[in-house]
Amino acid sequence: MTSADILAALPTPSLILDEGRMLRNLARLRRHLDTLGVALRPHLKTVKSVEAAKRVLTGGNGPATVSTLKEAEVFAEAGVRDILYAVGIAPQKLDRVLALCAAGCDLTVVLDSAEQAAAVAEASRRAGDAIPVLIEIDSDGHRSGLRPDDPAVTAIGRILQDGGAELRGVVTHAGESYGAAGADALAAFAERERQAAVGAAEALRAAGLPCPVVSVGSTPTAHFARDLSGVTEVRAGVFVFFDLVMAGIGVCTPDDIALSVLATVIGHQRDRGWIMVDAGWMAMSRDRGTANQAVDQGYGVVCDIDGRVLDDLIVASANQEHGVIALRPGSGRSLPELPVGTRLRILPNHACATAAQFDGYEVLPADAAAAPAYWPRFRGW
Amino acid sequence: MTSADILAALPTPSLILDEGRMLRNLARLRRHLDTLGVALRPHLKTVKSVEAAKRVLTGGNGPATVSTLKEAEVFAEAGVRDILYAVGIAPQKLDRVLALCAAGCDLTVVLDSAEQAAAVAEASRRAGDAIPVLIEIDSDGHRSGLRPDDPAVTAIGRILQDGGAELRGVVTHAGESYGAAGADALAAFAERERQAAVGAAEALRAAGLPCPVVSVGSTPTAHFARDLSGVTEVRAGVFVFFDLVMAGIGVCTPDDIALSVLATVIGHQRDRGWIMVDAGWMAMSRDRGTANQAVDQGYGVVCDIDGRVLDDLIVASANQEHGVIALRPGSGRSLPELPVGTRLRILPNHACATAAQFDGYEVLPADAAAAPAYWPRFRGW
Repeated sequence: MTSADILAALPTPSLILDEGRMLRNLARLRRHLDTLGVALRPHLKTVKSVEAAKRVLTGGNGPATVSTLKEAEVFAEAGVRDILYAVGIAPQKLDRVLALCAAGCDLTVVLDSAEQAAAVAEASRRAGDAIPVLIEIDSDGHRSGLRPDDPAVTAIGRILQDGGAELRGVVTHAGESYGAAGADALAAFAERERQAAVGAAEALRAAGLPCPVVSVGSTPTAHFARDLSGVTEVRAGVFVFFDLVMAGIGVCTPDDIALSVLATVIGHQRDRGWIMVDAGWMAMSRDRGTANQAVDQGYGVVCDIDGRVLDDLIVASANQEHGVIALRPGSGRSLPELPVGTRLRILPNHACATAAQFDGYEVLPADAAAAPAYWPRFRGW
Repeated sequence: MTSADILAALPTPSLILDEGRMLRNLARLRRHLDTLGVALRPHLKTVKSVEAAKRVLTGGNGPATVSTLKEAEVFAEAGVRDILYAVGIAPQKLDRVLALCAAGCDLTVVLDSAEQAAAVAEASRRAGDAIPVLIEIDSDGHRSGLRPDDPAVTAIGRILQDGGAELRGVVTHAGESYGAAGADALAAFAERERQAAVGAAEALRAAGLPCPVVSVGSTPTAHFARDLSGVTEVRAGVFVFFDLVMAGIGVCTPDDIALSVLATVIGHQRDRGWIMVDAGWMAMSRDRGTANQAVDQGYGVVCDIDGRVLDDLIVASANQEHGVIALRPGSGRSLPELPVGTRLRILPNHACATAAQFDGYEVLPADAAAAPAYWPRFRGW
């Protein structure tokens, strides 16, 4: 069954995963990190699929990062044993953390305050099971975490270590790198991430505290880091699929994007230059991540059914179940003739957000001789 | 069990539905349309829940509008027998339409081109079952549909009627009314909707074609219409829950909003004026529908656990699983003290988008003596 046959038979909208592109993306980052001598701890918040995770994780069950306890529970059940839950822990969630620990999962939590540290230490003592912890460091002012030189870093380390938890190290994420563009700017962000994490690790060690793990990462910095001395692991998530936001800052090209939404033309407003499709924001998500980039891609870039970009054609606006395709403003082209019933594929702004709108991936297999596959996704918390 | 007890026991983030507010919203629109003497055909794309639909539909199974065939299939299975699928039909979807018709569901489709009309007529003949059709009319230039005076309206009517389908009438939706504000502006949109639909209906009848159904509606126009002469039914969806976009244009107040996301404080960046919660865009959705309104509500308005708005506090930005709460720009207030572990409720910009991020509603029952309920949602196409 060829890709064309698979795509012709699917209902629309459907979420299409080009496995060949995904495997190429995985190989690219692994190669780069091998050169730098650092381990990869993929972030599974993007794929949210056991079948996809088998391809993404080293050895099929290697170290992983997650963004929800639901992800931790699903992947632990599927055999993943080393998981970092990379969102600040709420004390009310510690019972679920302890249940995962008791089930044999090495689950690490993240925090940046003395009150959280006291709660984790107390829960560890109560359970007789030292919960592993990374202290969150702020490397670029975009979200959570302590400045690397904040004395609270060692104070929290002490609360954890003396209180019965396991201080395992530090973690940072250069979320602001998504707003940078080009190799040099992204390399600078990577170096800032490295310095923040390594600086905090040195402060802990200087205070006589352990810090075996120094964890950094985001898809842009992971690809453009030039030196990761002192770092023990790199996290990245969206690199598996890539998307238009990543293409917009130069981390990939549109040809690397492994996800697309299959859609059908359902109408025209020819005098306005509009082609309507059955993929609105419910399919694409409301993510407008390219809105402030050099090229605004609307709700997505339009390709033909074989995945070739149709020049200057984007989903310019969207309602719940209607996408409105139009030429990019300023384009000198004329609108192509795409009759009702024509099938198109739309590249997403943000792979994490678009994939989350679907229950699973319709997989175009890397091996053209293989059968098409469906990989279920999950969601929730 | 009090609401406070229910809310204290739930995991976060959770989607909270205040049934009392919902019932009040339903009663308000029914009362208004009763005064105008027009039937309501609620749009179930907002609730996507059989349990919720039982409260929303007249008699529990009365006429309904849907935005996907999946919705039509689920609600037909649950006993709803009169359904309008209000998104332009793709020829490839006609087999599913015919299957629903064959199962006894009176399913009406929508179209605005001769090519779609020919496909529906052909499918009707093939099945020996006349598919009911409404011709889509464009009343405000926002999306699909034909101008009411376009000769294509009667030409399409003729293709349907002569070809073996059932021409049932016309349908329009004033999507641009979401950008208006205030009673007079919204009443003007409602009148434009009415005139467009009634004008197209008159053109069909003047050509000797039937037009028993004249369907109009959107939540803003449904509430502010002053005269619906010639209209047979009104559609509205988001009125069931309301949201900040509707409050921003004066259709409701924040106290009417029946949906909220329960979240937990997970950290602080006090020098930046930030409070972090575990409801990011995965919970709130990426919808930023208030961004261009007079008051930008960020990713949502923050309330205490009892649902009382905390003045000037909004979710100013969001990552996948992090919401960043801050004071509205220009607020003279100081940030309230909300320690890690504090539970909050966040009102959404757009009820349809936020609800779609969850698998179901945690219901605070209207009858305080009733047990808490969970109403599952579905999704997909």
